[in-house]
Amino acid sequence: MSIQYILEIIGTFAFAISGALAVKDQKHQDWFGASFTAFISSIGGGTLRDILIDSYPLVWISDITIIYAIMAGILVTFIFYKFLLKLRKTLFLFDTFGIALFTIVGTEKALHLGIRPEIAVIMGVFTATMGGVIRDMMTNEIPIIYRKEVYATACFAGACSYLLLDKIGAGRNVAFITASLVIIAIRILAVKFGWSVPRFFR
Amino acid sequence: MSIQYILEIIGTFAFAISGALAVKDQKHQDWFGASFTAFISSIGGGTLRDILIDSYPLVWISDITIIYAIMAGILVTFIFYKFLLKLRKTLFLFDTFGIALFTIVGTEKALHLGIRPEIAVIMGVFTATMGGVIRDMMTNEIPIIYRKEVYATACFAGACSYLLLDKIGAGRNVAFITASLVIIAIRILAVKFGWSVPRFFR
Amino acid sequence: MSIQYILEIIGTFAFAISGALAVKDQKHQDWFGASFTAFISSIGGGTLRDILIDSYPLVWISDITIIYAIMAGILVTFIFYKFLLKLRKTLFLFDTFGIALFTIVGTEKALHLGIRPEIAVIMGVFTATMGGVIRDMMTNEIPIIYRKEVYATACFAGACSYLLLDKIGAGRNVAFITASLVIIAIRILAVKFGWSVPRFFR
Repeated sequence: MSIQYILEIIGTFAFAISGALAVKDQKHQDWFGASFTAFISSIGGGTLRDILIDSYPLVWISDITIIYAIMAGILVTFIFYKFLLKLRKTLFLFDTFGIALFTIVGTEKALHLGIRPEIAVIMGVFTATMGGVIRDMMTNEIPIIYRKEVYATACFAGACSYLLLDKIGAGRNVAFITASLVIIAIRILAVKFGWSVPRFFR
Repeated sequence: MSIQYILEIIGTFAFAISGALAVKDQKHQDWFGASFTAFISSIGGGTLRDILIDSYPLVWISDITIIYAIMAGILVTFIFYKFLLKLRKTLFLFDTFGIALFTIVGTEKALHLGIRPEIAVIMGVFTATMGGVIRDMMTNEIPIIYRKEVYATACFAGACSYLLLDKIGAGRNVAFITASLVIIAIRILAVKFGWSVPRFFR
Repeated sequence: MSIQYILEIIGTFAFAISGALAVKDQKHQDWFGASFTAFISSIGGGTLRDILIDSYPLVWISDITIIYAIMAGILVTFIFYKFLLKLRKTLFLFDTFGIALFTIVGTEKALHLGIRPEIAVIMGVFTATMGGVIRDMMTNEIPIIYRKEVYATACFAGACSYLLLDKIGAGRNVAFITASLVIIAIRILAVKFGWSVPRFFR
């Protein structure tokens, strides 16, 4: 549990950085706008999940560490953003690590609340991706899930892997790590080889 | 109840089809994007209503049939979309049937929870239209309620009719069917004769 | 309490007017669109706050006076909009009064529910600004918080002032009035002297 908690805080921190950097190309990137965007990007997905499954209090309302992790991410972005933008690959890995972690954490949370596996998968994907979707809706961008090569679909595959491994009795830690690696692997391979999800309309 | 349940499943199925077809003109219409859009279009309105009136668990979380109806709608759209696009009139009727049904179902649900009639009308209109609004917000379209001729206003008129008929003791089935027909009639006549809601700013 | 309630109704009324006027430049401003926008602008922020802190029933669902205040705002806008548009300064003051009031009311409500001060500040800022943000997301505008000079930041400063005054035992009324005046003063000075929040990316 302790390791997972630390990972979640790191994931929140990483999402705050990628959220703050997302407004880089927007014309009006003042302190408030950047901080607000970082905040929404970090907690949006988990918040939507918890509202949908009626799980209160929301994590960031009951655990102030989340807020401090986001503030740390904003501060780090402010100080090091020129450096961070050079590290695009590192940031990509941070984001990939973040969506992998949040997908499985979200899926698990739903399952623990007695929610059906089909819905738990949706909750996992929402946890990982909806923060970015809400951010993009606010900044009038085409939402991330409509743009990126195999983004939410990687989360979907990871959540399904988790369920499968859980069902065949692989044990929670094996399922957690394997499913996370599935997401990370799909995402990295997709970007490296330009994979995209098949078109819906031929 | 049984007939109403079957109608609701058909309405969800119809909304999923119109949701999936809505991304036809978007550049990035992969399987995930189309499915996600169909999902949001179908359950967005009812979900917002239930969050606002604190009615948990959400219908699509407790009843997996909803999810399967949406998946069926997505699959049917994928296989038959060329055919479906030729049937624009049929689709228009499906959507009209869907908003009529969801308006009255949403109004009734709010009333059953002891919510005031004025608010129940709002909940009915939200149930029918907010799925489309959220979909349009995500795809950066002008939301449907700001565009279409007499769309949400037809729902509003139908919900008010229901309340009126209920008040004068018309009986639930009469009120349900008559109010639905009011919405369907207004919508069909509005499209046929190009009716629009009066301008707010002259 | 009575005075505060009257102020809240006036604030809702003022927000409805500024909401309805916000669609003035949109192409499709029919009665439904304008009313819907006024409604979302007025109750969006408080609704989001109450959903996040799980405070049910929502204020506008349990107290119908809110709905009537919004309807009055819509009607007044319809009749007097040419006159109101000439009064831009008066409207600015109404909006400023509204965000000041709603910031402190929102902060107080969160504190009364036992929520930590750091989160209560966020709830105060959300109460004042998120109605406008949701409105702007729906009408495909750049959200108000990304545009205006020192808008949400003024609310943030006011909410922090309230906490500080509360902590040093200034008494609730003194804290309420002083913090509101902080917001009003910052906002007026910001517009008068063209203040803006420092850029995040230099």
